[in-house]
Amino acid sequence: MEREIQIITTGKYLPERVVTSAMLDKNLGLPQGWSYKASSVRTRHYVTSETASEMGALAAEKALSQAGLTIQDIDCLIAVSGTMEQAIPCNAALLHRRLIPDGNHPIPAFDINATCLSFLTGLDLASHAIHAGQYRRVLLISSEIASIGLNWDQQKSCVLFGDGAAAVVVQATPLGHSSRILATHMQTYSQGADYTQIRGGGTKHHPRTNPPPGYFLFDMDGKGVYRLVSRYLPAFVEQLLNRADVDIADLDLVIPHQASGMAMELLRKKLGIPGEKYMSILENHGNVIAASLPMALHEAIQQGRLQRGSRVMILGTSAGTSLGGVVLEY
Amino acid sequence: MEREIQIITTGKYLPERVVTSAMLDKNLGLPQGWSYKASSVRTRHYVTSETASEMGALAAEKALSQAGLTIQDIDCLIAVSGTMEQAIPCNAALLHRRLIPDGNHPIPAFDINATCLSFLTGLDLASHAIHAGQYRRVLLISSEIASIGLNWDQQKSCVLFGDGAAAVVVQATPLGHSSRILATHMQTYSQGADYTQIRGGGTKHHPRTNPPPGYFLFDMDGKGVYRLVSRYLPAFVEQLLNRADVDIADLDLVIPHQASGMAMELLRKKLGIPGEKYMSILENHGNVIAASLPMALHEAIQQGRLQRGSRVMILGTSAGTSLGGVVLEY
Repeated sequence: MEREIQIITTGKYLPERVVTSAMLDKNLGLPQGWSYKASSVRTRHYVTSETASEMGALAAEKALSQAGLTIQDIDCLIAVSGTMEQAIPCNAALLHRRLIPDGNHPIPAFDINATCLSFLTGLDLASHAIHAGQYRRVLLISSEIASIGLNWDQQKSCVLFGDGAAAVVVQATPLGHSSRILATHMQTYSQGADYTQIRGGGTKHHPRTNPPPGYFLFDMDGKGVYRLVSRYLPAFVEQLLNRADVDIADLDLVIPHQASGMAMELLRKKLGIPGEKYMSILENHGNVIAASLPMALHEAIQQGRLQRGSRVMILGTSAGTSLGGVVLEY
Repeated sequence: MEREIQIITTGKYLPERVVTSAMLDKNLGLPQGWSYKASSVRTRHYVTSETASEMGALAAEKALSQAGLTIQDIDCLIAVSGTMEQAIPCNAALLHRRLIPDGNHPIPAFDINATCLSFLTGLDLASHAIHAGQYRRVLLISSEIASIGLNWDQQKSCVLFGDGAAAVVVQATPLGHSSRILATHMQTYSQGADYTQIRGGGTKHHPRTNPPPGYFLFDMDGKGVYRLVSRYLPAFVEQLLNRADVDIADLDLVIPHQASGMAMELLRKKLGIPGEKYMSILENHGNVIAASLPMALHEAIQQGRLQRGSRVMILGTSAGTSLGGVVLEY
């Protein structure tokens, strides 16, 4: 269903430390060129001392100042990350403290987590609350530190990821503008719940019980994910486009989750999307978990590939395994 | 703002293992009676082999079967817990797999986390999506294993908590019924973000970096929380009641977060709520983190303290520190 929601500003933050695929090849003892070939990522960023809430607050401050807004203009803060900074409290409380250190603006702050789809799920839910009049302007922040949880023995997955943050502010569409969400869609195929996982860190394999160290690291069955996604994504996209009542040819841009170069390219061909309408920031960002989609959206706007009135499909996959998408007029 | 939403069924699950305050006194080397006096909890339940997703699925199955429903009648699954079962994927994907083991019903599954307020935040957001027609029936599941993260050296906090799960199904109010949400409200005072925390388990103090073992355990500054909540809760409740356009005397029942006996009683007096209108399940459940509110709601319905047409305020506090509440006609 349509909702008159407008993305008014976006921001991103990348840690200063740049890690090239050539550096990874050397450190991991791989043939020169292996990491780039396996990931299509030339450079990604890793944190040195930054925390996720610091990065997220910096991305949010850039987004706000770009639109001439301050945090006082925001009436709800939603953290939309696939990783936690600490087990308790939620990420949004830590972001709230960074953005409002004197505590004088006690807006609601909470997390929505659908792993790599967290931004889309947050946008979907927030748009209903805005449409209903509960909030005027909502700040969505996705901030991810992937590097700390990478398994350096799992070469195919560890070369894919980078750290970083992105922030997006949405509000009800002002009179005279055509911005709106045309449709959203999400499906969870939990038969793939084990395909991408970090087993530990929660109540099941708690650090206190000394599980194997690998349980705290990211584990990916890339083939399993790809098989599941290939099987279900084409019909999913058709349903999403039907809900939005648009043809794929009517779209000005498709922003896919920046999962990996090979997966993105195979899906592009499967869906019949021309290369020039397909947004990729993978080469110089890597897969930034849930921050990938809002960061690619930010880059699309910055690079002028998305104009007011443009129609875009943002489409992703996540651990779970879930498929998610939104079609919107920017 | 009002939303015509009806709670149609609820369920709960408690682990078999019962832990009495007398047992805790003995195990912790405390004087007999100390744990009960400090917590007002006589018995709480701890898991033996149960996982959070097993408990949550059992609570959900009870709720569904009580209403003559199956999981096929649900079109969105929201996990509303303050703890994670594992770092990735989100809790909802693991619950989805328990409830739909053959994967033939790929409904959206995602998490909303506002620590102990997760159920209220989930109910608030889900109600907008239902009101807008996106979902017909939403299943909210809160499942918590507190026991694994308790710090046995912090006597005042460790005696408060128990494990368990609760599930609630909501839908658009059928014609001829008066069930509705009258108002919701949430505020985050992040100056209290450190008052209740588990520092580790996320990207900041990752198990790989070997932080002190205490970083993985729950740490509470009870006085800090109480001071903050006492300061802000009265005005918060007034705002919530104003939004709902009801007086506190019009409420048939108040369901507070089951934080601790002392905190609940002090707040009851501060807000001027008569004891017979104040729901407590603390004595035989303990504080079950985010599952406390839906579990107390379940008990209120089971015990006949909430009838169709009754007006109830569900009111909580969470790590963050946040205040949250909803006024609804059941």
